[in-house]
Formats: sequence, C-alpha cells, structure tokens
Amino acid sequence: MTMYRIGVIGTGVVGSAVAILLQDKGHQVTGLYSKTGISAASLAERLGCRAFADPVELLGFAEVIFITTPDRELDHMASLLAGSGMVRGKHRFFHMSGALPAEVLTPLREQGGVICSLHPLQSFAGIQQALVNLPGSFFAVQGDASAMEIAYRIISDLEGKPFTIQGEDKPLYHLGAVIASNYLVTLMHYALSIFGSIGIPEDKAIAALLPLIRGTLSNIEELGPVKSLTGPVARGDSDTVGGHLKVVSKLNYSYTDLYKTLGRYTVEIALEKGSIDETQRNRLLKLFCEGAE
Amino acid sequence: MTMYRIGVIGTGVVGSAVAILLQDKGHQVTGLYSKTGISAASLAERLGCRAFADPVELLGFAEVIFITTPDRELDHMASLLAGSGMVRGKHRFFHMSGALPAEVLTPLREQGGVICSLHPLQSFAGIQQALVNLPGSFFAVQGDASAMEIAYRIISDLEGKPFTIQGEDKPLYHLGAVIASNYLVTLMHYALSIFGSIGIPEDKAIAALLPLIRGTLSNIEELGPVKSLTGPVARGDSDTVGGHLKVVSKLNYSYTDLYKTLGRYTVEIALEKGSIDETQRNRLLKLFCEGAE
Repeated sequence: MTMYRIGVIGTGVVGSAVAILLQDKGHQVTGLYSKTGISAASLAERLGCRAFADPVELLGFAEVIFITTPDRELDHMASLLAGSGMVRGKHRFFHMSGALPAEVLTPLREQGGVICSLHPLQSFAGIQQALVNLPGSFFAVQGDASAMEIAYRIISDLEGKPFTIQGEDKPLYHLGAVIASNYLVTLMHYALSIFGSIGIPEDKAIAALLPLIRGTLSNIEELGPVKSLTGPVARGDSDTVGGHLKVVSKLNYSYTDLYKTLGRYTVEIALEKGSIDETQRNRLLKLFCEGAE
Repeated sequence: MTMYRIGVIGTGVVGSAVAILLQDKGHQVTGLYSKTGISAASLAERLGCRAFADPVELLGFAEVIFITTPDRELDHMASLLAGSGMVRGKHRFFHMSGALPAEVLTPLREQGGVICSLHPLQSFAGIQQALVNLPGSFFAVQGDASAMEIAYRIISDLEGKPFTIQGEDKPLYHLGAVIASNYLVTLMHYALSIFGSIGIPEDKAIAALLPLIRGTLSNIEELGPVKSLTGPVARGDSDTVGGHLKVVSKLNYSYTDLYKTLGRYTVEIALEKGSIDETQRNRLLKLFCEGAE
C-alpha cells in the first residue's frame, strides 16, 4: 500500500498527534514546522525527522501537508506557501479546523495544489489524551474531489470514521461539536462546583457522577434525548425546581442564570416528551424566568 | 446471611427496579402497592407476590419498606402509615428521593419506625434501563443510625457504592445530579438540534458525537474539568465565537440564549485554566453578552 511523505505545519496537540499516529502506521513524516520552533524540534527528535525554520522548505520533502496552525493563521499560511512558487500538483493540503471550510486554503489551489479540510470530532486536552481518544472518532471531510482518496486513507489509518459535510455548514457543525464537548466540560464544572459547595471534593464528585453520566448517555444512545429526560422538569415537579432555585440563588448569580436558562430549554423537551402538560409547562417557565418566591 | 421481607409502596420505575434486583439477590418481596394498582399488579405477577389495595396492609408482611412515591406524596404516605397504629420497631422505612431528607418520614419515626433516605445517583428512563444502569452507581445515604446496617447491605446487594450526606445538603446535592444528568440530556438535545439544522439525522449525529463526549469525559476523569476545556473559548478565539453567534442567531432565540449563557460561564473556566488573559476574557464576554456585530 502507498505510504505518504507527510509534512506538518503547526505542531500543537492535533498536529503532533496526527504525525505520531501516521508515522506509527508506516507513513514517513519528513518535515515539521512550528512558529517558535520549540514544539517542532521536540517532535522531530521523537519522530527522527527534520524541523524546518521556514515552512516553505517542507514543500520539497512532502506530498501530504497538514496545516494545523490556529484557525486565524490558516489563510496567512496558505498565502505564504502559495507565494513561494514551490506548490505543485502532487501536493495535498489538509487543514483540521472545525469551523472553517477547505476554501480558506484557496491560494494553494490556485497554484495547482489540492485542498481539503479534515476535522476530527474529538477533544484534545493533550498529546497523550489525543493519541488515546482519536481512534474511533468521526472525521468531517470537505474539499476537492481529488483529495478524497487520500483523505479517506488518512482517516482509516487514524482509525477514524469519515463523514462528508458542506463547506457552508461548517460553522453550525462546529457549534454542535462545541456544545457537545466544551459545554459538557462547562456543565461538569458547574455540577462539580455545586457538589463542592456541600463539601464533596472534586475527585470524589467526579467518581460519583460518572456512572450517572454514563447511564444517561446510554439512555440517549438507546432512546434518543427526548425519552431520556428524567428528573423534576420531566415530572413537572415545580416544588423541587423551586427548592433548587432557593438554594442555588444563595450561591452565586452565574449558577442561577445557568440553572434557569437550561431549565427553560428543558421545559420544552419535557413538553415534547409529553410528560408534562401546558399548565405544568407554564408553572415551570414562570419559575425559570422569574425565580422562586 | 439475613434476607429481608421487602415491601414497596409506589411501583414506578425506581421502586420496580429495586424490587426486581433485591428479589434476584434472594430477598423476599412480600407486598406491593401503587396508587392505581395497575403497576403494582403487573410487578406482583412478575415477582410472584401480593399487591395490596391499602398500603397499610404491607406493614404486616415486611420489615424493610421502600416508599417510592413521587416526592410530593412522601409526607402524606408517611402520615397515613403512621396513623394506622401498625408501625413497629422492626420497621425500616426507606425513601429514594434525591431532594428530600429522611426527615420527611418523621411521623413514622414517632411511631417507633426507623427512617432513612437512600438516593441512587442514576437516571431511570425505564425499568430495563434502570436494571442495566443501577449496578456501579453511587447511593447517597442519610437518616437514622439504626438504619445504616440495612442501608449499606441493600446498596451492596444493588451493586452500588454508598456515600453519606447531610439532610440539609440534599437540595444542593440533588441540584448537582440534575445538572449532570437532566441538563446533559438538554445539552445533547441542543447539540443534536444544531446538527439537525444542517441535515444530520439524530441517530447519525448521536453516533458521531458519542466518541467526542466519551473522549471529553475521559479527559475530565483524568485531568479535572478546568484542564479539559478545549475549543474556541479556551483559546480566546473570538473570531470563531463571533462566527457561531452569527449562524446560531439565525436559528432561534433559545439556542442563542443558551449559547451565550453557557459561554459566559465557560469564559471563567478558561481564565481559571490560564489559557486566556483578561483582554481575551473581556472580548469574549462582550460577545457572550451582546452578541455578534
């Protein structure tokens, strides 16, 4: 099977993890670049390859090039590489931004390169976590038709699962991912803070809440979210909601704000479930808008 | 080992699951009661025991009595049983409310009974899901000292893990559980709706998001929530946040409201992580308060 010569521009967590995993699969990482040079040098030592001081140099040593800089630097990097006169038809450029379409790399396409965006639907808290979490993840693919064969091969080598997406849908796609991952961290931070307020330490609270969270996720997997809604809102139990509001409002404003905003949305899910009627809905909404008496 | 004669008053999902699991472990479920009689009759057939038309009758056939009615009916049921003159010192009464302390059963204590609250930190979408999800769950225990031996034995037979809690802390404890479970359903419903808005069907979206969610949870388990925060807010990437706001505000108000409220809280986590500075914080907060230009 063909193995690729791979270059990585931007050796943060994602770029580094991809380089390590693809070299493990037999591809050859031939060149790395990072802005300060520090992370590229350290990864180059690990992989036994070169780190370049100028990203343009990579073009001479690799056909498959990952541009894994921060999103806001992608168009600048694309222009820089395109302006070098070194881009050839053999070059496939991949960026891994969730929010931006492949077309942010258009200057490279204009020089004869092929462009594609490849976004792993996964959260990368660090290189080690990325190496563990990447296999089994879905990847959103979008870009030039002639990049697809290599894109699918790379996803397969990363043990991921591909799905295609339209460029114009990427901001909403990325928003969905942010809700499911970053805002899950937010939700957990919030729950752990509430447990902390009654003296349950973070590690103990995480251990106690994880079986609950995993049970809830397995309900969602089996039944979908609407049928998985349980608890006071699903039961129309405004006494319990009122009790929550009474205690949470003594803690701080942002806990209360979040409780009420999430509550208003949850009321509509309960109505969709059919486990509350319009009267219960209105009683709950009043609490979630105005707070407890 | 001593096996108990068990009665269950209120054969909803939780009461039914507990009855089934404890009888599986060798205890004898001797009596059931439900308000309409329907669920008690059906469970009585499954377990081969009696369903009573009057909950007071159970007192003659069981020492361990679970009162698993809705929260708002607990005090009424306690008064009803207490008023019968049938409560004896041998009786141990357990309720399984998350928000209420054991003391809601005080009338039973005044008649010589022993009272305790035993709350499984788990979400019960249905009896089958409860039977699968209960083992491995934590149980919050609170009540009379003389109930503890039986409480711990029951938790052990349900393959759960006990932890103690103060009665006055139960509303905040329950709030934390609601956030981690019910509001997780809300968050998933929200993410799935956003994916739905770009044509990704619910089942496909669940399959794509679950590896991301599980990866995020495993980061939280390993690193805690603060270090697990990734994404645009953690990076101080206000361009991406502005892009989200632009697309989400075209969908509907409640999506936008939730995005901004969760965002404001998330900004403080990013600051705690140290991955953004005060200037980035203020720029993000401005977006999360006022919205995109």
